[in-house]
Amino acid sequence: MKAYRIRSGDGLTGLQRTEEKTLASLAPHQVRVAIHAVSLNYRDLLISSGNYLTGNQEPVIPVSDGAGEIIEIGAGVTRFRVGDRVTPTFFKNWLDGQPTPINTAATWGAGSDGVLAEQVIANEESLVHIPDHLDYAQAATLPCAAVTAWNALFVEGRLQPGQTVLLQGTGGVSIQALQLAHAAGAKVIITSSSDTKLERARKLGADATINYRTTPEWHEEARKLTGGRGVDLVLEIGGRDTLKRSLGALRMGGAVSVIGGLSGWASDLEYFQLIAAAGRLTGIIVGSRKMFEDLNRLVSQARIHPVVDRTFDFGQAREAYEYLQSGNHFGKVVVRVK
Amino acid sequence: MKAYRIRSGDGLTGLQRTEEKTLASLAPHQVRVAIHAVSLNYRDLLISSGNYLTGNQEPVIPVSDGAGEIIEIGAGVTRFRVGDRVTPTFFKNWLDGQPTPINTAATWGAGSDGVLAEQVIANEESLVHIPDHLDYAQAATLPCAAVTAWNALFVEGRLQPGQTVLLQGTGGVSIQALQLAHAAGAKVIITSSSDTKLERARKLGADATINYRTTPEWHEEARKLTGGRGVDLVLEIGGRDTLKRSLGALRMGGAVSVIGGLSGWASDLEYFQLIAAAGRLTGIIVGSRKMFEDLNRLVSQARIHPVVDRTFDFGQAREAYEYLQSGNHFGKVVVRVK
Amino acid sequence: MKAYRIRSGDGLTGLQRTEEKTLASLAPHQVRVAIHAVSLNYRDLLISSGNYLTGNQEPVIPVSDGAGEIIEIGAGVTRFRVGDRVTPTFFKNWLDGQPTPINTAATWGAGSDGVLAEQVIANEESLVHIPDHLDYAQAATLPCAAVTAWNALFVEGRLQPGQTVLLQGTGGVSIQALQLAHAAGAKVIITSSSDTKLERARKLGADATINYRTTPEWHEEARKLTGGRGVDLVLEIGGRDTLKRSLGALRMGGAVSVIGGLSGWASDLEYFQLIAAAGRLTGIIVGSRKMFEDLNRLVSQARIHPVVDRTFDFGQAREAYEYLQSGNHFGKVVVRVK
Amino acid sequence: MKAYRIRSGDGLTGLQRTEEKTLASLAPHQVRVAIHAVSLNYRDLLISSGNYLTGNQEPVIPVSDGAGEIIEIGAGVTRFRVGDRVTPTFFKNWLDGQPTPINTAATWGAGSDGVLAEQVIANEESLVHIPDHLDYAQAATLPCAAVTAWNALFVEGRLQPGQTVLLQGTGGVSIQALQLAHAAGAKVIITSSSDTKLERARKLGADATINYRTTPEWHEEARKLTGGRGVDLVLEIGGRDTLKRSLGALRMGGAVSVIGGLSGWASDLEYFQLIAAAGRLTGIIVGSRKMFEDLNRLVSQARIHPVVDRTFDFGQAREAYEYLQSGNHFGKVVVRVK
Repeated sequence: MKAYRIRSGDGLTGLQRTEEKTLASLAPHQVRVAIHAVSLNYRDLLISSGNYLTGNQEPVIPVSDGAGEIIEIGAGVTRFRVGDRVTPTFFKNWLDGQPTPINTAATWGAGSDGVLAEQVIANEESLVHIPDHLDYAQAATLPCAAVTAWNALFVEGRLQPGQTVLLQGTGGVSIQALQLAHAAGAKVIITSSSDTKLERARKLGADATINYRTTPEWHEEARKLTGGRGVDLVLEIGGRDTLKRSLGALRMGGAVSVIGGLSGWASDLEYFQLIAAAGRLTGIIVGSRKMFEDLNRLVSQARIHPVVDRTFDFGQAREAYEYLQSGNHFGKVVVRVK
Repeated sequence: MKAYRIRSGDGLTGLQRTEEKTLASLAPHQVRVAIHAVSLNYRDLLISSGNYLTGNQEPVIPVSDGAGEIIEIGAGVTRFRVGDRVTPTFFKNWLDGQPTPINTAATWGAGSDGVLAEQVIANEESLVHIPDHLDYAQAATLPCAAVTAWNALFVEGRLQPGQTVLLQGTGGVSIQALQLAHAAGAKVIITSSSDTKLERARKLGADATINYRTTPEWHEEARKLTGGRGVDLVLEIGGRDTLKRSLGALRMGGAVSVIGGLSGWASDLEYFQLIAAAGRLTGIIVGSRKMFEDLNRLVSQARIHPVVDRTFDFGQAREAYEYLQSGNHFGKVVVRVK
Repeated sequence: MKAYRIRSGDGLTGLQRTEEKTLASLAPHQVRVAIHAVSLNYRDLLISSGNYLTGNQEPVIPVSDGAGEIIEIGAGVTRFRVGDRVTPTFFKNWLDGQPTPINTAATWGAGSDGVLAEQVIANEESLVHIPDHLDYAQAATLPCAAVTAWNALFVEGRLQPGQTVLLQGTGGVSIQALQLAHAAGAKVIITSSSDTKLERARKLGADATINYRTTPEWHEEARKLTGGRGVDLVLEIGGRDTLKRSLGALRMGGAVSVIGGLSGWASDLEYFQLIAAAGRLTGIIVGSRKMFEDLNRLVSQARIHPVVDRTFDFGQAREAYEYLQSGNHFGKVVVRVK
Repeated sequence: MKAYRIRSGDGLTGLQRTEEKTLASLAPHQVRVAIHAVSLNYRDLLISSGNYLTGNQEPVIPVSDGAGEIIEIGAGVTRFRVGDRVTPTFFKNWLDGQPTPINTAATWGAGSDGVLAEQVIANEESLVHIPDHLDYAQAATLPCAAVTAWNALFVEGRLQPGQTVLLQGTGGVSIQALQLAHAAGAKVIITSSSDTKLERARKLGADATINYRTTPEWHEEARKLTGGRGVDLVLEIGGRDTLKRSLGALRMGGAVSVIGGLSGWASDLEYFQLIAAAGRLTGIIVGSRKMFEDLNRLVSQARIHPVVDRTFDFGQAREAYEYLQSGNHFGKVVVRVK
């Protein structure tokens, strides 16, 4: 079967197309999935540049997020049948409850093979059904980005209907969060340096937009947009320069879900600011299979179509990575496998 | 000023129109509100028939839910100005946190005067602003019915976006709950004995409807509508015969918010059924001012217009009570005061 | 190997000693446990009389709660080594998070073989380590009774240090709950019809006791013991006649964890009483492996020794059942296997 | 009456003894309290040096924490009687629920007069009863330090019995937290640079101690003490250099309650560290009256005696401040007023 491999630190030029043998036989609880589409995350760039939590010493098949069809099942499989449309879960063993070093140890594409390949073998517990109204490209955007958004918004973020969430930028997680929060009755404020992207965000349901280039004190603008009260939740994706402003935008007792760090992976935290806000910062590490299933229920109920910004052919995987790296995307970048 | 008075147990014929003196002067933190509209609840029928928790030995001005305009403020008032449009909170002293015998002791229209009058005096802490897009009749429907629905759905019921809630009947609380749950991205199943009412519910956003007359085993139908999984939450409004079915409709780990008892105020509870469902039953006692403010944020954000089924003139208050008692209403019954 | 078998509905005389073959080989993630002691629960009586949720059409090896030593491990086992002291979890597949029909489907001794046998085969995920300071008899009391108490107190019951819990009777769950709540800084009120048992409960840490025979209005006494405020939590074990009193003993916003029904498995629930108390009733279905591990941490930290009322030899298993049925026990009844 | 006054930024020499007029008459809901003892907090040093959140432009009576006896009540007072022993709450208007800019606006000794005086006038809602077994000096230690510890441990920190908490240093909040966590069945690890202080901490119930001078990598030692798992909660009191280690000591999904910053009020936060730990940082802003009442229940139930390190006469208030500033204390520093 065709696939790609990459070693951590080799950079995007290290992404090499390969031909792989398919595994001959399945263990009792395994299934074989024919991948139709995969979706890239900022994590995939970090892995290629060698800056991710987990490194790959040897070349591995990259990418965590994919969607496909089950083409074979092991003798003991009860959760799926051949022909089912499925997405792998980001963590292979975190089913429900709290994350632990054990249930979060195994992921796709970091430390072990991922989904940028014609076929993958998965344990039946590590897959969820695709909502009926989604195609494979849309479904491929869910495992990391949308589950992260779900956890950040509704689990750790405890966002309630009618509350206000502030989203930083228009990348994958932010746009998924925009669609989810909007469907859940929340008020959404989103920032970008591009008025064109902000216009697109409005069409997806954003209630208010802030161009952080023309309004660098965006936290003050966010406060104004909530009548001075402050926002209930911020999804912190920016990095070095943003945490102070995120806390500045917060209502007393509000929360910041810490997801990314596009502009750097550390920030100064002023204790007095956190204490005066009675604020809560939580590190978001994607989510459990249970969260994915809960997410899918909302995606189905609200008939959300995740935003696929651009789709690349299998042979153009490196171009897809480069497009993501350019930062010009709005929503998700997808690679067609089949 | 004109008003009505009633004594517990006198029945609807006991509802008598009166002329009252207005209080001459305000204490520092009081405001005077010119009531424009009031809305009736099942509680008002229980008070008139003498079946409510709290009785009125002497005739009191009835009704808890009203809306009006501030026409005078005490010397120390900081939360409001003359001209502000406001609704009283159901409990005069439950601001935030848990209910206690002390903060839930004082309510409007049971044990002390209510709002079916041209003017009321309220402490500034016992009022909230009316969402801009609502008229007084719509705003008058919120204090008891909508706050109860909010508490039942999102506080004690912990309803999450994409989950399924089952609502019993098309009375005031159910229809408010339908609008709120729909706006919050939940799937709504609603029951009624009238296909006409079910049709109206669909137009308000109900995802599925069950006529419990033609489908007496409605809990089984509800299970089917969730793919066999069971609903996440039931708002129990029915009474004697319904609890067993409510538990039967529930998913494992689901919840029942116990609000009313139209057909009786007790029920058989089978322990095995509750345990096997790992179910949770919670008694809902309206809610705090904080919940009311949270509710208003969603009402504003989603531009919800509460359903006013029928509006009566001030002189027709008894007809309004009778109409509520008939059970023919869909949503709320309002009496215009001004 | 020696074991017992019983068929649902055959009664205690149906409990028959048998000789069984031991399973020849282990699957990769299985371990073989030599059982040293088992502990009986009220559930075991219900299974024998045919009144339990799940029936055994064919004779199965009964009992859910046991403790033993690992004597062999499968090729893929990572959680345990030969020689480890372990207890099986009540549910074989409920690891963490919420209960579901799937993760609670398989238990020991109902529908499939239990632990009243010289050996059992278990998946490595279905076992937890025994706290160091416990012997096998003490450890055998934990899987059902103590995990149920933990869930009822600290998970669904949300008991906080300094709060008051009321425990009904001095059976297995109550006495475990007494020890756990006492170690967690809660105030414990316990009821019994025997002053002798109440005296023993005091020695274990009960702060107050009520003889419900001499004080049938025990809920009023419980209120007095909290200065009129009401208790924060009740563990409802009694049944038909007790729920009304449990709710009567409750503070506003308090909770009842519904566990058993010694005197009947249904109760009249008065809606007004539940609503006026803003009370919460939750059905407790034992608990997850995560809860068991959390429990063990407290058992270790506080060096709790579960109360083993009486220990029977393997050949006297029926006498052990009969003793439990007599209701004369205080704490747990154990059968030695090795 | 005798009192002290201080202006923010004047330093400890600015603390001046004064003679004040007592207020002639009480408003309906006010009470007059004869202060018997006050207790100092790090906050009082920050106010004197001008480094606190709120400054006092004019000299105000300092100190938030005191205890005394009610000697006069207003006409409408229902919560207290003359002779009652009481402590003021830190925030005058935060009764229950979440903190808001409004309910946290008014505190004692910052922006308005505090309790370092013979008498104070308080609204009856801003006081709680003193547990019977405490004297005034002990009770005076509760309003800021112990309520902060309570909130940090059990509200935002969600500490469960059997879990492990790490406390930094042996100042007021840490020692209160040690006593509370120990009484609640938690395992306590405490750090200090003094073996003598660590020895005292052990006598109060600490399960393990770490001298951070001899063991600068104390987070690794803390991990070892939990069998490699990591602690469930850290009370972050240190400041600039400690946050990274606090996160390093944490189990996955654990929490840090951010309280102080003895060695600095900002810290570098590494996003990857927070995300990999799925950690939660919460700013603790003392707590509500409800939390104070909950705290008092545990203090009473466990008969906790807060540690008064040293008591100064009224005339020695400046010496008391200096002693606190020296950092030589263990537990709380008290000034006798009566």
